Amino acid sequence: MNATRPRVVIVGAGFGGLAAAQALRKAPVDVTLIDKRNHHLFQPLLYQVATAALSPADIAAPIRAILAKNLNTRVLLDRVEGVDAAAKEVRLGSGASVPYDWLILATGARHSYFGRDDWAEHAPGIKTIDDATAVRRKVLLALERAETETDHERRKALLTFVVIGGGPTGVEMAGAIAELARKSVSRDFRSITPHCSRVILVEGGQRLLATFPETLSAKAKRAIEKLGVEVHLGGRVTSVGADHVQVGDEIIPAFTAIWAAGVQASPAASWLGVETDRVGKVQVAPDLRVEGHDGIFAIGDTACCPGPNGRPLPGVAPVAKQQGKHVAATIIAALKGRRAPGAFRYRDYGNLATIGRRAAVIDFGKVRMSGFPAWVLWSVAHIWFLVGFRSRIVVGLSWVWNYLTFARSARLITGEIR
Amino acid sequence: MNATRPRVVIVGAGFGGLAAAQALRKAPVDVTLIDKRNHHLFQPLLYQVATAALSPADIAAPIRAILAKNLNTRVLLDRVEGVDAAAKEVRLGSGASVPYDWLILATGARHSYFGRDDWAEHAPGIKTIDDATAVRRKVLLALERAETETDHERRKALLTFVVIGGGPTGVEMAGAIAELARKSVSRDFRSITPHCSRVILVEGGQRLLATFPETLSAKAKRAIEKLGVEVHLGGRVTSVGADHVQVGDEIIPAFTAIWAAGVQASPAASWLGVETDRVGKVQVAPDLRVEGHDGIFAIGDTACCPGPNGRPLPGVAPVAKQQGKHVAATIIAALKGRRAPGAFRYRDYGNLATIGRRAAVIDFGKVRMSGFPAWVLWSVAHIWFLVGFRSRIVVGLSWVWNYLTFARSARLITGEIR
Repeated sequence: MNATRPRVVIVGAGFGGLAAAQALRKAPVDVTLIDKRNHHLFQPLLYQVATAALSPADIAAPIRAILAKNLNTRVLLDRVEGVDAAAKEVRLGSGASVPYDWLILATGARHSYFGRDDWAEHAPGIKTIDDATAVRRKVLLALERAETETDHERRKALLTFVVIGGGPTGVEMAGAIAELARKSVSRDFRSITPHCSRVILVEGGQRLLATFPETLSAKAKRAIEKLGVEVHLGGRVTSVGADHVQVGDEIIPAFTAIWAAGVQASPAASWLGVETDRVGKVQVAPDLRVEGHDGIFAIGDTACCPGPNGRPLPGVAPVAKQQGKHVAATIIAALKGRRAPGAFRYRDYGNLATIGRRAAVIDFGKVRMSGFPAWVLWSVAHIWFLVGFRSRIVVGLSWVWNYLTFARSARLITGEIR
Repeated sequence: MNATRPRVVIVGAGFGGLAAAQALRKAPVDVTLIDKRNHHLFQPLLYQVATAALSPADIAAPIRAILAKNLNTRVLLDRVEGVDAAAKEVRLGSGASVPYDWLILATGARHSYFGRDDWAEHAPGIKTIDDATAVRRKVLLALERAETETDHERRKALLTFVVIGGGPTGVEMAGAIAELARKSVSRDFRSITPHCSRVILVEGGQRLLATFPETLSAKAKRAIEKLGVEVHLGGRVTSVGADHVQVGDEIIPAFTAIWAAGVQASPAASWLGVETDRVGKVQVAPDLRVEGHDGIFAIGDTACCPGPNGRPLPGVAPVAKQQGKHVAATIIAALKGRRAPGAFRYRDYGNLATIGRRAAVIDFGKVRMSGFPAWVLWSVAHIWFLVGFRSRIVVGLSWVWNYLTFARSARLITGEIR
């Protein structure tokens, strides 16, 4: 490293932060990538860890290993506590400070309970590996307890799974739980049969997958109902407890609830004291600069960036990746005295969601696909985008194996029981 | 299930308990297998999870899935609290009781700190998946912290790894850590070079692998020293703290210590109030019955069973498996009014230990092997004995991949940092 080269600090090694680091690989800058975890996580497949189809290491790779060949980049495992914009320094949890000339905030989002944080305990969301293994534990323990429960009502509640939120994550979770609870485990348990379990998907709006065209929403609903999932549309969750979920006035006895309803941006905005939208995302200029802070960018789920139709861009991996590249290009242009690339424009290659092990919906704009061909395409796309060659092989193999056998290979309950 | 059939209760789904359940598969009995975890664990490879080469799910399989085809068997996830030998019932943590006609105790062992339980916090042992992921976290975090540590002495202590105990587990752990710290990670870190780290293996006796012939012990010592491990023989650990291990009078500054020194049997003996040996194993009759308790057997690490040379049999998987089968045969003979198989005789097919990714030692009694051919044989044997077809493929693939690339695919730090 050369102390006189411009210093770029990237906070967060999600899709956006990694893409920026990769795009700066050959630039004459010193890059520091800071993350509070040591691994990059392929979040789109996290629900498969939560439902025991994949192992954590299949969808997560050490950030250092991914960037081993980026010789201008160092990786720090640390928690960012704040930004001193006047001194141009990032303050770390360990007490150290990291100076920057350019700062890229790619800190992502957590789930939001719309002010009802007390629901978090009973209806965990899925954003990290630890979240996913906790949900896996919860689902598998419910099945184990149902096996020995003699009280009929308690048994029913143990076998009732409520997924809250009808976006892609909720639809994917509900489909995967239905398969796990109704098919995969049926031959291993002596007293649970496929008819015993209920999987309920609650969505506040009038259709599933609201960001997709209506025809695909309808197809997704039919496909997921075929898997045995009960879909509640227009259902407003009014209470979540250890043993129930209340939707409107109806109390559903259930020991397992999963939250897939809302997201909230990381506290990056508060580090800068800048304006945010309703969910805490930083308002950015068209070129992704944070207004009023020269040299600071926000990307991915950290940024509120309007799309071509005026609505904010969705919080998906392709947006974050393209924004990471865009910011890197902006920095490189500035260093070389070239014309800046200007406003960020999202190239939308399509929108995918999967429903169980046989169906998916894909919206390419003009072309729309659904059913089994869409599922095959979804599988290929996800394996392709998985970081790390070994992960691709292992995940591909796990899927083929699970598909052929209905087995769930990662059905581990870790941690002590009671 | 038929209520009038004899009831066999097996406690523990390790190698012994599973072998007994499998051998009773077609017997006219109702089998209940109770374990406090939902998975069977292939313990001989646990050190590879602790050193990030394999994922937990690669070496663990749900007990229910393994026994899905055993139609006379039910599996309970519960903690056994005690045995009421008069009423012939096993008492569970959930409050329920399970009646038995025959009881097989296969509850295994934990590590023992020889009365210094305060060392457990600083020098964890490796017996469960949770143990292994905790050690993995500890080792990987030490490397991460060393990368940013500026104080020379602290940095040296972060990069010093002390393994206590020179049996197979200790030798395997030390070799694997040496590879991880000296080779696998060197290209990913910017300030750690192979020479920075020290791996120290402390053994109280005068040679490593005391159960092997002396020539193989010497070969193992040479092989592990070639990997860069410093071997301290005749070293007595006198203190273990957060930042040091003391061996005799010498204080070794080290933030990571791992315990592979002693085992202690499960509390099964106390459930029955029977005599034990020094480490808590139940004294059994030659046919593995617990003396004074008709119909109760103890096997594997739960039992103290003398071998042909008068010394107790070692706590290894083949002993447990053969004992499980023997007890099942004894029960079947009793039910059918046939002559009992009598005293248990251990058939010793050999003794294996591996040293890093290129060497192993094998003792077949007359034939002894070491070096690379022994390592290949060790690999084949371990993949062969892995339960579950998918695990075999994935582990085989991971090993080939790790071998070719020196990569460690499961290098995840889970849980929150600081």
